[in-house]
Order: sequence, then C-alpha cells, then structure tokens
Amino acid sequence: MAANSVLTPQSEDFPRWYQDVVAKAEMADNGPVRGTMVIRPYGYSIWERMQAELDRRIKEAGVDNAYFPLFIPESYLSREAQHVEGFSPELAVVTHAGGEQLAEPVVVRPTSETVIGEFMAKWVQSHRDLPLLLNQWANVVRWELRPRIFLRTTEFLWQEGHTAHATSEDASRFARHIHLKVYDDFVRNVMAVPTHIGIKPPSERFAGATTSMTLEGIMRDGKALQMATSHELGQNFAKAFDITFQGDEGRSEHCYTTSWGASTRLVGGLIMAHGDDKGLLVPPRLAPIQVVVMAVRDEPEVLDACHELVQRLVAAGIRARIDKGRGSFGRRVTDWEIKGVPLRVELGPRDLGEGVVTIARRDTNEKITFPMSELITRVDETLEDIHDGIFQRALEHQTRWTTDVTSIAEAMEVAQTGFARLPWDLVGAEGERELKTQAMTVRCLQRADGSIPDSDTEVGLVCFVAKSY
Amino acid sequence: MAANSVLTPQSEDFPRWYQDVVAKAEMADNGPVRGTMVIRPYGYSIWERMQAELDRRIKEAGVDNAYFPLFIPESYLSREAQHVEGFSPELAVVTHAGGEQLAEPVVVRPTSETVIGEFMAKWVQSHRDLPLLLNQWANVVRWELRPRIFLRTTEFLWQEGHTAHATSEDASRFARHIHLKVYDDFVRNVMAVPTHIGIKPPSERFAGATTSMTLEGIMRDGKALQMATSHELGQNFAKAFDITFQGDEGRSEHCYTTSWGASTRLVGGLIMAHGDDKGLLVPPRLAPIQVVVMAVRDEPEVLDACHELVQRLVAAGIRARIDKGRGSFGRRVTDWEIKGVPLRVELGPRDLGEGVVTIARRDTNEKITFPMSELITRVDETLEDIHDGIFQRALEHQTRWTTDVTSIAEAMEVAQTGFARLPWDLVGAEGERELKTQAMTVRCLQRADGSIPDSDTEVGLVCFVAKSY
Repeated sequence: MAANSVLTPQSEDFPRWYQDVVAKAEMADNGPVRGTMVIRPYGYSIWERMQAELDRRIKEAGVDNAYFPLFIPESYLSREAQHVEGFSPELAVVTHAGGEQLAEPVVVRPTSETVIGEFMAKWVQSHRDLPLLLNQWANVVRWELRPRIFLRTTEFLWQEGHTAHATSEDASRFARHIHLKVYDDFVRNVMAVPTHIGIKPPSERFAGATTSMTLEGIMRDGKALQMATSHELGQNFAKAFDITFQGDEGRSEHCYTTSWGASTRLVGGLIMAHGDDKGLLVPPRLAPIQVVVMAVRDEPEVLDACHELVQRLVAAGIRARIDKGRGSFGRRVTDWEIKGVPLRVELGPRDLGEGVVTIARRDTNEKITFPMSELITRVDETLEDIHDGIFQRALEHQTRWTTDVTSIAEAMEVAQTGFARLPWDLVGAEGERELKTQAMTVRCLQRADGSIPDSDTEVGLVCFVAKSY
Repeated sequence: MAANSVLTPQSEDFPRWYQDVVAKAEMADNGPVRGTMVIRPYGYSIWERMQAELDRRIKEAGVDNAYFPLFIPESYLSREAQHVEGFSPELAVVTHAGGEQLAEPVVVRPTSETVIGEFMAKWVQSHRDLPLLLNQWANVVRWELRPRIFLRTTEFLWQEGHTAHATSEDASRFARHIHLKVYDDFVRNVMAVPTHIGIKPPSERFAGATTSMTLEGIMRDGKALQMATSHELGQNFAKAFDITFQGDEGRSEHCYTTSWGASTRLVGGLIMAHGDDKGLLVPPRLAPIQVVVMAVRDEPEVLDACHELVQRLVAAGIRARIDKGRGSFGRRVTDWEIKGVPLRVELGPRDLGEGVVTIARRDTNEKITFPMSELITRVDETLEDIHDGIFQRALEHQTRWTTDVTSIAEAMEVAQTGFARLPWDLVGAEGERELKTQAMTVRCLQRADGSIPDSDTEVGLVCFVAKSY
C-alpha cells in the first residue's frame, strides 16, 4: 500500500494529516479570501447527504423551512446586549453598495437570530400561532483569525432553527426533542459518531441563551468537537424583539424562544472521527458513494460486467458507481480508500469466468468472494455491518479516552488527550480558569445516568473536560 | 366569494394585485434592508420544490454540485473587462471585518463566474479533466435601485452552472442541452409555463458572453419575464482566468466555458403566469400541497374521516394535507384559493353517510362528487388534467398576445400588452433605441421554425419585442 507516502500519518502530525485528507480526498480548497473555502464536488456531495438527512428529521419534528436575508441592520444586533457582545469582533460589514457609501452600514449575518426575532414578532399574534417552528438553510459569516477548513471558516453553511413557544416548558421540551431526535439520532445513526451529550456550563453558553445543549464528539486525536447545539433563550430574545402573544386571559405575554444549529463543521467532524492513515472513512448511511465497482483489468467484457453490477446495485437502492479511473489497480484502490468509500466490489476476468465477485471493506480490509447471484444481499448486509463496526470502533475510542478523575489537576493531565469526567461541583470558576491555561474547557455537564440536566445548578452532575476544535 | 374584497383585481392594478398575492398567500415579506426579502414558509416550500426538480435534471445532465465563497476579491471582477462593467454599479462591498478595516475590500458575489474560473484553472490540467461540469446553489447580491419582491431583489437565491469544455462545439451543445432538457423541460412540464425560446440580441447578452439563450414567459399582464438563461462564454473567461488544458498535440489550449442560471425570480414568474383574481394558482407537479382535505363541518367523525383520506392520499404519493383552519368553511376555501392549492377534497356529514366525497378544482371551479373508493384514481387523473389545463390556458394566452408585425412602429403598438414578432433584420441598432424609449426590448431571436439560432447573424430570424420585468 502506498498510503503512507500519500498522507502524513495521524500519529506524526494530526493537523497535517487532516489537511492532507481534505486535499487528497478532494473535499475542499481554501478560497481566495482568507478563511473562506471552496467545497469541492465530493465534499459537497457528503454535505448534501447530511442536509437531506437532517432536513427530513427537522420536517418530521413539524418545522417549516424559510429564508431570511443575508444583510442585517447593525442596530438589530445591539438589541440583545449579550448577543452583540458575543459577535461584534466577528462581524463583516458592508459599507458601500450600488456605487456609493451606505447611509447605514449593514452586517453580513453571523446568525439570523435577530432578524428572525423581528419577523416572529410580526407573525405571532395569539396563542393559536404558537408554537412557531422555523428553520433556515443558509450561509453565515464570522470573521476568523485562525481559520481551519470545515472547522472554523469565515463563511460556513448551516441550518439554524428558531422557534417560539407559549411556555417555558414547551420551549424546553421542544429544544430537547430537536437535540435528541434530530441531532443525536443523525450523528449516531447516520454519521456513526457517539457523543457525550449535555448542557454547556454558564461560561460557554451561546450569547443570550439560558441553556445551551451540546453533543461533544471525540476525534481520533482525543480532542472534542461540538457536533451541534440547541439553545433555550428563555424570554431574552422575545423581550428584545417584542415577540408577544395574547394569552388566555387576554394579557400580552412574551414568548419563549429556542434556536439550534448544525453546520459544515460536521464534515470536519466526520473526517476526524473516523479517518485513518489511509484517508477518510465515510459510514455507509451517509456515503454519497456506498459501493464502487472496479474492474481488476481494463478488458471490455469485465467492464461490461461491472456496468451491469452497478445497474443491479442502483436498482436495489444502493448508491453505487463504476470506477472510471485510469492507471494501476492498486493506485485506484488507494484513491477510493482516501475518499473513504465504505465498500469496493472487485471483478477480474477469472472471477467473471467463475461467476464470482469479491467485496473489500474499507474499515477492516476484509475481502470476501461469493457467487455473483448473492451480490445484493451480501452488499446490503455488509453495509449495515460496516455502519455498526464503525460506530463500535468510535464508541470504544470514546470509552478508552474518557477517564474518571476527582480533581482539576488530574483532569488537566487526562485531557491532554481525551476527556476527563469529574464532579461538576469540583470545578468552580477557579477550576475553569485553570483549565483555560491549558486550552481546556468544560465541554458539557451531564447527569450521573448520562441524561441531560435541566440546569447547571442540579446536584450530582458530572462534567467532561477536554481540549477542543 | 369574498375574493374581490381580499385582492386588488388584476385588471384594476396588476402590480398591486401581485403585491397582494405575495402578502396574502404568505409567500414573502420585505426584509429590513431595502431590496431584501424574507421568504415565508409557503413561498419557500414552492422554491424547495423548484430546487428539487431543477437539481434532479441538472444531475441527470452529469453536473456535480459544489460550493464557492460568498466573498470575492475585487480584483477578480476586473479581470474580464466586460464582466466588471456589467456589474460594478450593483456590487455590495465589505470594507470592515473582524473589528478592523480590511487591507483589501471584498465584494459580495453578484455571480460566481470569476471565482469559479479561478478554480477551474487549477482543476483542469489535461483534456481528460474535460468537460468539467459544476453547479452551485447559492445566494447572490446585486444592489437594486427599484426592488420588486422575487423579481428584482438585492439578494436572491439561484443555481449557477459553470462548465468548461475542450471545444466550442461541445460547449455549445452542452449549453443547449441544459437550456432545453433542464430549463425548458422544467418550466413547461413542472411550472406549466410555455415560453418563447431563443437567443438574446447582442445588446442584451450577459457581460462576457458570446451567446445568451433565454426562455421568455408571458405574464398575465402581457409583459415578458426571463425564466432562465444559458450563456456560451467562448474563450473569454478562459483567457481572463487562464483555464487551459493540454491538447492532443501537447499544446496548451484555452477551454470554452458556459454558465447558466435560474433564480427565485421563477417564483415571481409562477405568480404572474398563472395567478388570477382569486390568488395564486400552483400547477400540481410543482405544488407543495397538491390536495387539501377539508371538513365541511367541524365534527369529530368528519374530521376523523378527513384524516383518513389524507393518509390514503399520502400513501399513494400525493402531497396532501388536512385543513386545520378555523372559522367559516367559505373563508377557509378562500384562503386555500389564495394559496393556489390545485385541488380541494371536501367532506361533509351527509357525504360521509352516503360514502361519497367531492373534489373542487382551483383552476376551473368544477366540483365532482364520486364514491370514496374512487378517491385515488380520481385525484390522480384530475391533477394531471389540471396540469394540462393550466398549460393550455397559458399557451392560449401566449398565442393570443403574440402578434406578427412588420415594422418597429407596429411592434411598439402591439408590445404595449404582449409580444410583437417581427423579422430581426427590420430592427437594427436604431430600432432597438426606439424600442427603449417605450421601455421595450428585443426579448429574443428565433428561427422561423421556432428553434434556437446559432448566432444573431443567421438569415431569416424573427424576434420578439415586449415590455418586461
């Protein structure tokens, strides 16, 4: 295998391995303006599958998609005090347009919280309009000083959900539903990534939120990545934007709002959660190409048979394509391994004569040869098996790199690579400051049974400390 | 019917009727920054269906989706001289970001032509990399002095396809394929809109193009709307961005490029091509809600039966939903008419007793009652019939409002409302100037047999003159 000569090994230099995979798997390029990215077709096809899977779950939760403008009046951002503080250093500002200086500069949205708040106020009149459940797929801009492709880019793509409710309970219940039934379900059952789920400590909450829920995945280098977040905003935004409804007794009351988002960061998370020294590894339910069919030799009969296999696979609902690559078989295999296609079907002239076909798994390197008539059943089974195998491997990685500790000092040692789990009441403001000196943070708070706390003041909570992306 | 009290009649004030429909059908609102828009859930669900139908056709043409950055260095736009001239008054410029003034201002993309050109140059090496077929779904910004919702907004959503080819013939063939098999097929067979297809006169070409193809739809008020355009750019962009490939003889040659786009304007076109005094009329293949099931009276058994009908329709692949509206039946009917849902299923207590159900067509107001067991067949047939009926009505409108003339003077009379068709060689630069004085333009050139010319210098071409959106 020439893999080592293609990619920097993870153990040698993980950040460079990441950059190598992004480039060699043709996922993305840096854009001409610092911090921006060009998402190449293969990377974008993965994002499209993420979008489709998330969108379906979001719609099943009863949420409607809508679209709000890219440009936001500067004044909107300052209406919610914490919100503007959270964003002002990151804003991109348009001062000139239509050939002249604008009377009022406009901000390129860093999130649509404020403009959506403005329109919710207009659309919500009575309790019959509630809950109002909206989602938007859009690009947002946050100027990044230390950009990293997919993980931290000046412009990124995301969905942002925004909802308004009559009661705090309903808002809370809905945010949790999204967090578990949209995000956790997607991350676990499509991306095959296990996470530590919980709420952020007050110091790490989204600007203006009363509760921020997170899913913290562990990457192959032991660092944490926030896969998605769901916020309860209490009445903070409703008060800033005057989102009110006529309550049962005819009194005007402020709504309770939530917001929740997941972004192209997930593509970075996918790369770092499953990738290895051979490249990317895309779990089958996410993979835009689940199966690549390869002719071992470039002979017409073999190629014809390969085309036929692709047709059979596609007819059975499997995302399959033929390898049109040129050059040596070994080199082509390496290329598909870099792209992380979960399963290869290999067919040579002798196989054709014998009526057999070989499948090769990207995750385990296992090869199995069987009669061609079994193709669909075998491929279906193996794809399911690969999903389970990848999830299991990631879960073992998470378990191995999550260590119970009983002091900040120990946590700081453990979190050099991995998660430290410790009682939340051992941390305190002083502990958080100490962790910061080593670029560590409390990633989330969790109940002892693994469930999501209602509040950081509950007794008996544990927390997870790690370095993070 | 209270329709007349809800919407301004088309004959009284068409622009105001348009605004009324946009507002009352809950399609969109004006955004807080002048010229921007908020696409509301119902409007966005129509756009999502347009996207899905176009995207499928684009992928079938062998094109891959990708994503390029929102921000473009100002210098990129000036590389192709005509291109920068075409856009400079419309640009929005970011001068401040990350809390400081930028050393180099960046432009918010008015189109991604230039940045895609830059990356094509990087990705294309040999003729094996050709054709390179890319598409992007994105928002773009063109500062509008006279904005009109959906039709002319400062920010709009669109897809822009960009392709590079080894030969002029291949580029030309591909652009025509997109124009006919993606755009015309979609506009005709999904939107039910007939158009005059042809090429733009040189004066109306896209900045930098050698040929611009268009589809000109005729709106209910007789004005033209460009539904989509496909451009051949010759080697202009390839030379400006140095997109070259190693030809067969080892010489470096410039590619031939194309670009083609359709935008949220199509939503405006939909409203104006089919709408009437009762509101929007969405053709069934496009409609996010094809059938609304309504209980004539708000009784539990009737509602239960309505839910069951929805389930049966959905199971049969029909986009159906229940009417959850409150208030009088008549008022609810009016609301669904404004939204243009093509078919209503109405069920009352007596119908339930008799085992029958009534369907009501939005396009013809026809009502048919039949046994409940026939529901799926009847609905399927009627939806197909509605598509054909809507297309036929639009075609008759187009035919009635397209008049053959033999002079500019006549053309100017006819094009007060509708299209004038006349020999292209009668127009000339002087004719085009005269038309402009009445806000009319040559919308497109066509061969006498209705096909698309290769060039505006072909003999025997006819052209269409109209006012336009």
